[in-house]
Amino acid sequence: MSRLFMFEKPLGMRDTLPELYEKKHHVRTLMEESIKQWGYRFIDTPTLEYYETVGTASAILDAELFKLLDKDGHTLVLRPDMTAPIARVAAARLLDNDTPLRLAYSGNVYRAQQREGGRPAEFEQIGVEYINDDTVSSDGEVIALLVSSLQKAGLSQFQVSVGHIGFAQELFIQILGTNGRATALRRFLYEKNYVGYREQVNSYSLSSIDKQRLLQLLELRGGEEVIGKALDIIEDGYGKQSLIQLKELWEVISDYGLEEYVKFDFTIMSHMSYYSGILFEAYAGNVGFPIGNGGRYGLIEKFGKDASATGFAVRLDRLLEALGSQDVLTTVECIFFSQERRKEAFQLAESLKAEGKKVVLQDINGVKNLDAFTKKFANTTFLIGGANQ
Amino acid sequence: MSRLFMFEKPLGMRDTLPELYEKKHHVRTLMEESIKQWGYRFIDTPTLEYYETVGTASAILDAELFKLLDKDGHTLVLRPDMTAPIARVAAARLLDNDTPLRLAYSGNVYRAQQREGGRPAEFEQIGVEYINDDTVSSDGEVIALLVSSLQKAGLSQFQVSVGHIGFAQELFIQILGTNGRATALRRFLYEKNYVGYREQVNSYSLSSIDKQRLLQLLELRGGEEVIGKALDIIEDGYGKQSLIQLKELWEVISDYGLEEYVKFDFTIMSHMSYYSGILFEAYAGNVGFPIGNGGRYGLIEKFGKDASATGFAVRLDRLLEALGSQDVLTTVECIFFSQERRKEAFQLAESLKAEGKKVVLQDINGVKNLDAFTKKFANTTFLIGGANQ
Repeated sequence: MSRLFMFEKPLGMRDTLPELYEKKHHVRTLMEESIKQWGYRFIDTPTLEYYETVGTASAILDAELFKLLDKDGHTLVLRPDMTAPIARVAAARLLDNDTPLRLAYSGNVYRAQQREGGRPAEFEQIGVEYINDDTVSSDGEVIALLVSSLQKAGLSQFQVSVGHIGFAQELFIQILGTNGRATALRRFLYEKNYVGYREQVNSYSLSSIDKQRLLQLLELRGGEEVIGKALDIIEDGYGKQSLIQLKELWEVISDYGLEEYVKFDFTIMSHMSYYSGILFEAYAGNVGFPIGNGGRYGLIEKFGKDASATGFAVRLDRLLEALGSQDVLTTVECIFFSQERRKEAFQLAESLKAEGKKVVLQDINGVKNLDAFTKKFANTTFLIGGANQ
Repeated sequence: MSRLFMFEKPLGMRDTLPELYEKKHHVRTLMEESIKQWGYRFIDTPTLEYYETVGTASAILDAELFKLLDKDGHTLVLRPDMTAPIARVAAARLLDNDTPLRLAYSGNVYRAQQREGGRPAEFEQIGVEYINDDTVSSDGEVIALLVSSLQKAGLSQFQVSVGHIGFAQELFIQILGTNGRATALRRFLYEKNYVGYREQVNSYSLSSIDKQRLLQLLELRGGEEVIGKALDIIEDGYGKQSLIQLKELWEVISDYGLEEYVKFDFTIMSHMSYYSGILFEAYAGNVGFPIGNGGRYGLIEKFGKDASATGFAVRLDRLLEALGSQDVLTTVECIFFSQERRKEAFQLAESLKAEGKKVVLQDINGVKNLDAFTKKFANTTFLIGGANQ
């Protein structure tokens, strides 16, 4: 065990200094305001949950969980996502009378890192969960809200890729027969390893038509026209139903006037076992990972209530990366005072603050390096010495 | 080990439902705005810190720390306070050029609970740290900012009790001679056990004059006049210097015009070893514990920089308790639609949101219990069926 330097932080843990804090706060507030305008209500859940309940429901890999033991021998986890805790709260306390429930959150989640990481072990997610409404309208709403809130946050160049968990799944079963062989292909899609996918498909002994169908899946990306192409390679059944849902979704998105932000991508696959329908990922041109993702899931059932839900989560750190270096301008002025004119300084500061200004009041005796300090301010006033100076 | 019910949360962990969330958000925002207006800049630090560095510096009892092990065998803690992490960041990255530094924070801290607890194991603190300025003006500023931000948050009935770590300490040493005997009396003061304090004093074999001096300490509460009374029982030395500081502090507070919110209380004592000067506690009439506290401390030195600091922390949960049941009014309206008039509904919602309203868009087919659902809204509009209805 190495000795720690006094300033060291645990692996993947980061400080947020003033400039970044202000930018984060600004973007978070814009997202939150937008989400509230759509009638979603924010809730918060604890940082620590039981592993047995929320920890196992969350579908984050076990190795990525921060675990600790409580005094009764139960394992606690730092919440790895917000969807599972919100499913717990909704099932325990908020779902009633068979009515739809629109919830939102803004909070930190935790993922333990390996030594070779470099990724954050703690990051902030803003998201919504639209619970107990299984219409395609509700899937459309969360996608439209994702687009709308990203726009409000200042993002202009981005794309939401929409797929359906049922399409590829059904196609694989129709062609490969077993879930085991389907799993291998699913993993390649999840890892976005399309070369590996092609090699895997070519290694199967299948008719050339079936191989062609599996390879054509990779081409199913684009606008409304993709649905027609998808219909050509799938037989009747759940796979076809998923296309009917996606067609309706496109109409909903069109009624919102947001077609330019949305495209279909039938290769989207989630490692999360709980997705059960439409699912999507949001990308901004310059960021290598999705800035947000979501979809329909059946997780609430694990907490004993029969309710489907749909939602999205945006990673604030990646959204900030996508937004680039737009600085939030903070103008602060400084009034220096000495004892004789202290009261006058306090009154001047009050009146400037009443105008909405940010004002530092500084006892001149408290500053050792006046030159360096005055440089920090947009404006400085000196109320020093005799009152009638 | 008992089996867990699916909805259970770890001891002391709480959910925040929409009504409370909105109230918290509202009060937090008012406090933050106020703090920013005084030129303080917010920063954030990780939830997890190393026990060896920040954990041991934080001066929270070891039994109250949530601990876990990382992959290299180091112990991590969930941060028990914000002052120690901010001292780390300030020393490592922000202190420069011998200039004062005004930082603020708003974040959750963690205290492990015993079974008999009932107290929160996770709670939110909002506070400031004014670093590298050792004038009494800076102590006065943080007290004035505490008062001002509590007022802005809507609190009217409260009091800040101000003392000095040096006065009682010096009095005890002057009379009792040893630190050991002083420690016993300090503990009674910290626990606000004045009966115990009196008994302890009477058990000492001291001159009646010295006993009287120790007992008079308990009477040193009130306005400016208390300083004169305190001068009567202390001999020259550090204790007298602390009175000079408090006298100057009173003048600063008077120049802010905040005398009515501040009183002296020489019995205030902290269990935290790092306080080194003026210290204070804020009380609101109906809450049994301080809603905030603070003072001058030398903690930055533990991180290798020679800088004194002063600051305060407010507990948001206790502030909300003090504010009572003022609800934040949220008015949301609902537009119900069917497919035929979906686009019209979306457009109506857009125009209402542009006016700043909160609007839920609801596919009528997604609601099983329409009566229960409509009751949740201030206003409802139905755009259902043929377009020319």
